[in-house]
Amino acid sequence: MACTLGERFRLTVFGESHGSGVGVVVDGCPPGFPLDLQRLQVDMDRRKPGQSLLTSLRKEEDKIEVLSGLYNGRTNGGPLTLFVRNTDVQSSSYSEVGIKPRPSHLDYTAHLRYKGYFDYRGGGFLSGRMTAAMVMGGGVAKQLLEQAGVEVHAYMKSIKHVTLPREPTLDEIRKNTYASAVRCPILETSPRMEEVVLEARKNGDSVGGVVEAIALGVPAGYGDPIFDSVESKLAHALFSIPAVKALEFGAGFGITQMYGSEANDQFRLIDGKIVTQTNNNGGILGGITNGMPIVLRVGFKPTASIPKPQKSVNLETLEEEEIVVKGRHDPCVAIRGVIVVENMVSAVLADVLYSVLEDLRFQNS
Amino acid sequence: MACTLGERFRLTVFGESHGSGVGVVVDGCPPGFPLDLQRLQVDMDRRKPGQSLLTSLRKEEDKIEVLSGLYNGRTNGGPLTLFVRNTDVQSSSYSEVGIKPRPSHLDYTAHLRYKGYFDYRGGGFLSGRMTAAMVMGGGVAKQLLEQAGVEVHAYMKSIKHVTLPREPTLDEIRKNTYASAVRCPILETSPRMEEVVLEARKNGDSVGGVVEAIALGVPAGYGDPIFDSVESKLAHALFSIPAVKALEFGAGFGITQMYGSEANDQFRLIDGKIVTQTNNNGGILGGITNGMPIVLRVGFKPTASIPKPQKSVNLETLEEEEIVVKGRHDPCVAIRGVIVVENMVSAVLADVLYSVLEDLRFQNS
Amino acid sequence: MACTLGERFRLTVFGESHGSGVGVVVDGCPPGFPLDLQRLQVDMDRRKPGQSLLTSLRKEEDKIEVLSGLYNGRTNGGPLTLFVRNTDVQSSSYSEVGIKPRPSHLDYTAHLRYKGYFDYRGGGFLSGRMTAAMVMGGGVAKQLLEQAGVEVHAYMKSIKHVTLPREPTLDEIRKNTYASAVRCPILETSPRMEEVVLEARKNGDSVGGVVEAIALGVPAGYGDPIFDSVESKLAHALFSIPAVKALEFGAGFGITQMYGSEANDQFRLIDGKIVTQTNNNGGILGGITNGMPIVLRVGFKPTASIPKPQKSVNLETLEEEEIVVKGRHDPCVAIRGVIVVENMVSAVLADVLYSVLEDLRFQNS
Amino acid sequence: MACTLGERFRLTVFGESHGSGVGVVVDGCPPGFPLDLQRLQVDMDRRKPGQSLLTSLRKEEDKIEVLSGLYNGRTNGGPLTLFVRNTDVQSSSYSEVGIKPRPSHLDYTAHLRYKGYFDYRGGGFLSGRMTAAMVMGGGVAKQLLEQAGVEVHAYMKSIKHVTLPREPTLDEIRKNTYASAVRCPILETSPRMEEVVLEARKNGDSVGGVVEAIALGVPAGYGDPIFDSVESKLAHALFSIPAVKALEFGAGFGITQMYGSEANDQFRLIDGKIVTQTNNNGGILGGITNGMPIVLRVGFKPTASIPKPQKSVNLETLEEEEIVVKGRHDPCVAIRGVIVVENMVSAVLADVLYSVLEDLRFQNS
Repeated sequence: MACTLGERFRLTVFGESHGSGVGVVVDGCPPGFPLDLQRLQVDMDRRKPGQSLLTSLRKEEDKIEVLSGLYNGRTNGGPLTLFVRNTDVQSSSYSEVGIKPRPSHLDYTAHLRYKGYFDYRGGGFLSGRMTAAMVMGGGVAKQLLEQAGVEVHAYMKSIKHVTLPREPTLDEIRKNTYASAVRCPILETSPRMEEVVLEARKNGDSVGGVVEAIALGVPAGYGDPIFDSVESKLAHALFSIPAVKALEFGAGFGITQMYGSEANDQFRLIDGKIVTQTNNNGGILGGITNGMPIVLRVGFKPTASIPKPQKSVNLETLEEEEIVVKGRHDPCVAIRGVIVVENMVSAVLADVLYSVLEDLRFQNS
Repeated sequence: MACTLGERFRLTVFGESHGSGVGVVVDGCPPGFPLDLQRLQVDMDRRKPGQSLLTSLRKEEDKIEVLSGLYNGRTNGGPLTLFVRNTDVQSSSYSEVGIKPRPSHLDYTAHLRYKGYFDYRGGGFLSGRMTAAMVMGGGVAKQLLEQAGVEVHAYMKSIKHVTLPREPTLDEIRKNTYASAVRCPILETSPRMEEVVLEARKNGDSVGGVVEAIALGVPAGYGDPIFDSVESKLAHALFSIPAVKALEFGAGFGITQMYGSEANDQFRLIDGKIVTQTNNNGGILGGITNGMPIVLRVGFKPTASIPKPQKSVNLETLEEEEIVVKGRHDPCVAIRGVIVVENMVSAVLADVLYSVLEDLRFQNS
Repeated sequence: MACTLGERFRLTVFGESHGSGVGVVVDGCPPGFPLDLQRLQVDMDRRKPGQSLLTSLRKEEDKIEVLSGLYNGRTNGGPLTLFVRNTDVQSSSYSEVGIKPRPSHLDYTAHLRYKGYFDYRGGGFLSGRMTAAMVMGGGVAKQLLEQAGVEVHAYMKSIKHVTLPREPTLDEIRKNTYASAVRCPILETSPRMEEVVLEARKNGDSVGGVVEAIALGVPAGYGDPIFDSVESKLAHALFSIPAVKALEFGAGFGITQMYGSEANDQFRLIDGKIVTQTNNNGGILGGITNGMPIVLRVGFKPTASIPKPQKSVNLETLEEEEIVVKGRHDPCVAIRGVIVVENMVSAVLADVLYSVLEDLRFQNS
Repeated sequence: MACTLGERFRLTVFGESHGSGVGVVVDGCPPGFPLDLQRLQVDMDRRKPGQSLLTSLRKEEDKIEVLSGLYNGRTNGGPLTLFVRNTDVQSSSYSEVGIKPRPSHLDYTAHLRYKGYFDYRGGGFLSGRMTAAMVMGGGVAKQLLEQAGVEVHAYMKSIKHVTLPREPTLDEIRKNTYASAVRCPILETSPRMEEVVLEARKNGDSVGGVVEAIALGVPAGYGDPIFDSVESKLAHALFSIPAVKALEFGAGFGITQMYGSEANDQFRLIDGKIVTQTNNNGGILGGITNGMPIVLRVGFKPTASIPKPQKSVNLETLEEEEIVVKGRHDPCVAIRGVIVVENMVSAVLADVLYSVLEDLRFQNS
């Protein structure tokens, strides 16, 4: 259950890895918005597998089909439904995993939860392929937010031990991230990140990574308190991305090692605007935006599916057996995770800033 | 808005730091459960300020009053309402913060969000005092879960740089945690953690910390996929605790630096039960419980309110001014955060395991 | 479960008939609103039992206690909690109904649903007494709506066969409704309605009635389509009032007997404003307000608890037995239902018109 | 917004009258259910226009396409998505209604709500065509309920003044309803109902009707109290069907004219089972099922779109103008409403009885 996220800007995702395709219903899109489908397709291409040895070799066109919600190129105020068909499906690789669950994969838990009826081929409706729906739905949000002056970006912060040596500039983020095969905004670090991925791949292994996201131009004073804090809503959405195991805002876990006098973001008045000297709180105080950039980091685990032999248990014979995972898998899911994080952050912010979006007047394009 | 959390086991919190008191409505409590109010009071005492120099000097009795939901000592199936009155309120300390917001505190954002009508005394309804409601509501969940064989614990993992030198044993956790003034389960580490807090306090400063929580006995195969993953629901709840800025499950951010072959939790068969050799996924795979202990860590920032002079901006004159925060504040909010994390994890798990709780038959006590 | 209603303006009710009292948490109240507690108390007095032989003889002060949400007499933006204590409780009358369920009452179904742990005294948390919480929460909404130019009224349309002979004028509604013991806005009809109630009471019987509600000044173009239509939301709330069995909008069931050419509300332009000649749709088209008055009627069944002997089944011996219901009951619940309907309609409209309420600027009172 | 209904068994509908098509995402379908797509297609055929002069002449194949959720013919536990394409679209008829709203239609309110961007062709996403999605989603629920021994039926109770002369037998309902062009279960009444529809059609007019629904085999003790009463949930769903203006349970408005002693459903013990002598409460007491048949009636207004000249207002010139509605419309929407009511009642009951459905074990078909 529970394929629906958000209160006013709301995504309902559907589909499977090896079924007809994957789609999303976007409910709450303000009417009259001239959605740029070509840009949405660019987002999808950024998530698409089969682009290099750094990602899965599965090849999907992921051509967006609009099933509802557009009228003369503009949103009509009703549910907007976007769909991509599955084309390059190789289900034979999965004959084994229904019986011998892959370590750290959802095979075992989905088997229990769905009483043996789970479509384990490619991870079924829990597959990483579901992030295609997230990218489409969140991409609509990202375009809407831009109309309100909000700019959302994500990029690779680290892959295994290879970390950005410094904060990237906004210019680097805009220009380099998606030009880099590993979504690394600092030119000189990109090859080193690529190397660690390729080496893992060669060894039949995989690596994890940390994706950082920033949102610029978020107005101050938005978000609801207590259980609907901006952090709560972002966390809810981001932990729904497969393979995510950690999340921090601003200085994150690092802030736990500071003194309050170091950690506190003191106020300054710059050009008549109240800002903070530092941004250790990542743009959110008391669950409410403070006008500073929202900054967060998401930790992706290494791809669970690796060709190296591993221990499993045969669910039929109840005996320990070895498993060698077949299929085409990403050596580092964090890479394709970058656009997913970017767009899911956008989806949540569209919900948080909904009253701003409602008041937008769209120009005649 | 949004003082309600959960779908089937549901908390609605209310109250303010300096109003009449703080309460919680627990909706969905199965009927017939003989709630142990004395144990609930013990939980409240573990959160209570004024216990030592390690916490705020504010003294609250926090005596639980039952406003609804109990009949002959058992839950009647309707909304269970628990309330504690505020008694030791010193509002004079807050005359300034409505005008000069405290750095890293919610004063500024609440001022914007609530258009100047926010009751900033003590943090109003966004105050750390709201965690009293969370402890009460979650404490009910914790007692219910025990009937289903689930045991939830939290304890201090680190305060500033002082970290537990090793995993505590279950016995240590049970015996030492709340006997320690800093909720440290390893006896020899506790004094060093205390020291760093007292030193910060002496210097008019504060420190942060990391709280770890574990849930034992959680059955495998529970949780919903995608947007209602167990991680999503736990994250939503935990980021609603004031001062929390980071969260990780299992090996957390550490997993991003492993190879897949190291990170994957390989399956074993022990006494006819399927378990994993390691638990880097913290008991959750594909958003669903796998029967291993749920393990998570929550990062608390240092208390924002410190007596050291800091830079602020006067919201009336729009000039930069210095602020010296008065009032009685915790030098380390993570300490009182331990029981809050423990009980909020319980509240979420009661929602996740609701169908198990529904089937419980309570004995005649 | 499910004591929470509404999305942005949200009520959470709690309490029992024979427990400590009954309360409501109002979440989403815009900050800065100078709530008129005296007027709210007047609403409560209009619902209060013990006012005449026409209602139950139970006497409750129902003095409103504010547990949270007000600061200097204004809403602070956080959860507003209102509570009334039970004082005149006579639980001895209910010793029997846990075993021998009252016909048409909730005794039997609550017994099953709550596995024998239901507090059947006075109907527990399913009691008509819960409407005190609805009146308080909805009364806050009614005051807020007035600031936005929306005026909500309810009045008795019929008691048994005694029906209003014509549409009451707005003036009659405002002046006469609550001056009448049966909430009848037309002076000459009121005594005849009273008579039928008193006669039923004398005979150990009860009667039902129809309550009509109107909302004036509702702006056009509000409400969400499909599952969140204004009718859907109103219906959801109104069918949660105990004893309600029927609901119709505009011409209601009568419209099913018209031709389309009679039923259709044709458009007119009056003083530059688009209105309709008739209002058979009751102010709602396609689930969205059209600027005409919202008009609806709610059917209340006769009070189930009557002293006349009736057939029941003993749940312990599983034998048919006679029951003679004791306790103090209303001979016509519809009478006290008038203010409940009025305020619940207000609660829903506050949710529907939330974006209007958010933009209100409250004067300094 | 708000195209999602239900908590555990949940429908999300999407599409438009004159877009690509109409679909539904069913979330919460228990895994392993062998869905009978042919039967679902029969339900769709019962809703389909173009079957006779009694309904719209628009011809839609409404062939169900499965976009997700089935694996080897069984539900896989994930979101089940069903879609039908629009084929017979004649949009030219609607050039006028964007400017001159049709009386009693949603043109005017949708124009305001969606700021002029509404796709008014055929009623867009507020169209009666959306009921195709309701029929598909609710049809899945109906099949599931049958596995739990629950049988849901709807049929025409009255068209204009032509009313069923007596209660139809269950046998008549099963056999005659969908064999009748007007869904009338009593053979001799059917031609008289047809006549009144055809006559209205001939006169360029339309008629309304009352649809009755019953649910047999619903176990006692299900449903949640207060705001999630079974009546509240049914009402929410049924008032989301276009053209519905009234709803009553059991004796409905009629009960308001009875004495309590007449209205009360006294208990009897028959074959060791507790039943009631009468069923004036329509199977629901205190918001909870009592084991008797659920009985309800839904009032449909006459089709708003009629060819007779009517008064409207030109939204551009702001002048009163006449409108003659073109397009192909049903002379009596209640007819096609029968299957919609039947399946929407099923959708709600699947949510109410969810814990029963979860425990079903499906046979290998």
